[in-house]
Amino acid sequence: MKRLVGRKLRIAGLTAFVGLSTASGAIAASNFPDAASSDPKTLGLMTGFPPAPDKRVMQPDSNFFSFPKLRWTVCHIRELMPTKQVSRGLGARVALQYELDEGIDTVTFTPIGGGKRMTWKEALGVNYTDGMLIMHKGKVVYEYYTGCLKQSGKHAAMSMTKSMTGLLAEILVAEGKLDDNAVVSTILPELSDSAFGDATVRQVMDMTTGLAYSEDYSNPEADIWVYSAAANPMPKPADYEGPVGYYEYLQTVRKEGQHGDAFGYKTINSDALGWIISRVSGKSVTELLSERIWSRMGAEQDGYFTIDGIGTPFAGGGLSAGLRDLGRIGQLMLNKGDINGERLFPASVVDNISAGGDKTAFAKAGYKTLAGGSYRGMWWVFHDKHGAYAARGVHGQTIYIDPTAEMVIVRLSSHPVAKNAVIDPTSLPAYQAVAEYLLAK
Amino acid sequence: MKRLVGRKLRIAGLTAFVGLSTASGAIAASNFPDAASSDPKTLGLMTGFPPAPDKRVMQPDSNFFSFPKLRWTVCHIRELMPTKQVSRGLGARVALQYELDEGIDTVTFTPIGGGKRMTWKEALGVNYTDGMLIMHKGKVVYEYYTGCLKQSGKHAAMSMTKSMTGLLAEILVAEGKLDDNAVVSTILPELSDSAFGDATVRQVMDMTTGLAYSEDYSNPEADIWVYSAAANPMPKPADYEGPVGYYEYLQTVRKEGQHGDAFGYKTINSDALGWIISRVSGKSVTELLSERIWSRMGAEQDGYFTIDGIGTPFAGGGLSAGLRDLGRIGQLMLNKGDINGERLFPASVVDNISAGGDKTAFAKAGYKTLAGGSYRGMWWVFHDKHGAYAARGVHGQTIYIDPTAEMVIVRLSSHPVAKNAVIDPTSLPAYQAVAEYLLAK
Repeated sequence: MKRLVGRKLRIAGLTAFVGLSTASGAIAASNFPDAASSDPKTLGLMTGFPPAPDKRVMQPDSNFFSFPKLRWTVCHIRELMPTKQVSRGLGARVALQYELDEGIDTVTFTPIGGGKRMTWKEALGVNYTDGMLIMHKGKVVYEYYTGCLKQSGKHAAMSMTKSMTGLLAEILVAEGKLDDNAVVSTILPELSDSAFGDATVRQVMDMTTGLAYSEDYSNPEADIWVYSAAANPMPKPADYEGPVGYYEYLQTVRKEGQHGDAFGYKTINSDALGWIISRVSGKSVTELLSERIWSRMGAEQDGYFTIDGIGTPFAGGGLSAGLRDLGRIGQLMLNKGDINGERLFPASVVDNISAGGDKTAFAKAGYKTLAGGSYRGMWWVFHDKHGAYAARGVHGQTIYIDPTAEMVIVRLSSHPVAKNAVIDPTSLPAYQAVAEYLLAK
Repeated sequence: MKRLVGRKLRIAGLTAFVGLSTASGAIAASNFPDAASSDPKTLGLMTGFPPAPDKRVMQPDSNFFSFPKLRWTVCHIRELMPTKQVSRGLGARVALQYELDEGIDTVTFTPIGGGKRMTWKEALGVNYTDGMLIMHKGKVVYEYYTGCLKQSGKHAAMSMTKSMTGLLAEILVAEGKLDDNAVVSTILPELSDSAFGDATVRQVMDMTTGLAYSEDYSNPEADIWVYSAAANPMPKPADYEGPVGYYEYLQTVRKEGQHGDAFGYKTINSDALGWIISRVSGKSVTELLSERIWSRMGAEQDGYFTIDGIGTPFAGGGLSAGLRDLGRIGQLMLNKGDINGERLFPASVVDNISAGGDKTAFAKAGYKTLAGGSYRGMWWVFHDKHGAYAARGVHGQTIYIDPTAEMVIVRLSSHPVAKNAVIDPTSLPAYQAVAEYLLAK
């Protein structure tokens, strides 16, 4: 694997984006420049013709996911690697309705773990927010863009991609096209000899599989490096002998522990699920997402996925999309499959997700900021009194749905720390405070 | 340059796409499978999860521009390399009006050089057409998709990209923001020591520069290989010491002959022009094209450009776009800058292009199928009795505008031969025959 080292740096960040969401958050944001001074516009990243050498993000072998470069990168993934379109189709977009509420900026909350009360507006910068959308009762009450993001831009969704893959799988289950009790090897014989072979589809969907998969970045032999090399769409070194693409990699995964015992947040489950739904539906994840959701929800922009070297969309973290379109996804979930007067999937799909997964299995993973929660169909369920659940992506991405407050929040950000446990303390209580504010209106 | 050989094959085709448009056409299409049997759907290219090894187009080091793979590739450029969006903005598309005319299929013509008369419909297959749109008096009278292309798909425009770059330059000239009599070095001091340094902007726009630039693919030391390596967005080999990106390459181009003497179809002129308009406007070619044209013509899809390793859009051949959106471009030209009731640029822009360039300089290049023509602002002008002019791209791309017949034709195709001189005999007289047919209606 020696020849891979040069490329490792290039792709490592991408994997870090989606793979890291550990239970503890030891790294503090205070080690990094703040949001204003690390704004890619302030830094002049990738400006000029050509950009000055020290302003370039995308030079060969540049680590474009390192901070502060990542603050440019999150809006420009397609400029760094091959991608596949999630078409919105050719129909008219359905414009969102607006009823902006400036009062939200002054809503205050106490961060998890204590500390000074903070306003919603202050939290935007603290969390390195690039885009923020709040919808209440179907109308946009708050919208904010800064850094690399603009209305017609697209931002990396990171692991929120998993929730799109999970949603598609739940739809196929609800329609009877995918049996979530089936053993994976009956759908994908290629995975028979892998850890996935004797797991059920549901265990994959809820990430309770027992997989030997190390994300110890300091160990050059860790699985994450083999995975990254396989996933990398760039030409392989001449002496490369490892797996090519997600599908070949998945066949090499060995079992560790028992399936069903514990929640283990491992991106490769989403990649396996992407393969499962493609085999069952005959469509790539991008095609299926376009056909079932993106082209039918009144989207205003296409989305896109990164892909591996044989064209497989990265079902575990490859999506980039516009802020408002992710708001439409949230609204679609809040409305249980109904949007703009059209039903896209049965309400049971959302009921099943929002009811949550195995809390005991989840507790074993020890997420301090998500205690009492669970993971279902690749969505995070809080089991709080509002019944909130969310799609979450590293560096601070979220689609947060609060059914009680009839509220959807989409946050896109480029936080320097690749651990949501660092970002949750100034995010989750902020969402709850805005929910209470909106409920009291 | 030895270490580049592996990559050469990968990028060579891209360059061939845009760089080859020689005066003679010795290679016949008859050496290749016909359109129906080379249809990527028929061949099953890139189908299945994963595609079988012999159905893969995008494997590392696969020559994805070779025939028949290119019949898939032309619709999937973004899946093979990094790209940059040409945003349509977020406004509503303006739907095209339809008045379909089935009679067009039976229009007949005699190919250049003689031979049996052929119907329009027969010519579709003969020319390996993927998409065909004919507009007459502003309405769509003919629309056709096959092979890799569909309504919501995008197809490589190849060297038609040059005409977009040229159009943007002509707009800046008409607005007084770019002086086409200026010497290039006054705008881009970085090019002072190159062949472009003492050329005028107009000579670059009309490709009458004298440039030492060989596209002899059989010579491993030919300029085309150095250019290809520079342009390649993939990571460079560790021992690479050549130029990085279009801008660095352009600085190495040496002079040959005198500027203004003869037309010489060399893609690097378009890359130089792209740099010129970016320096003058402060915007990348993709941003400028979006701002001035794409977001204002009622486009229904975003377009995109391939880019080099520092994010420079390939102004000489990087565009991919939808068939109908290229029809909107044609209609915009036919209407001299006016579309959907809005004026996007002065009518003089089109008058200047359609009046043509230096016919004597053009004649020296010896294009048999384009005798009597010229090249102006990176558009091909036929100087025929209808005043027709066109954007043209290798493998058979065209936006053909016939002002007399009030007709726009867009053809997107994946002809096996990378020489329009092979495709013109069954194309140009077909366009003229349809023009006469529409005029007689």
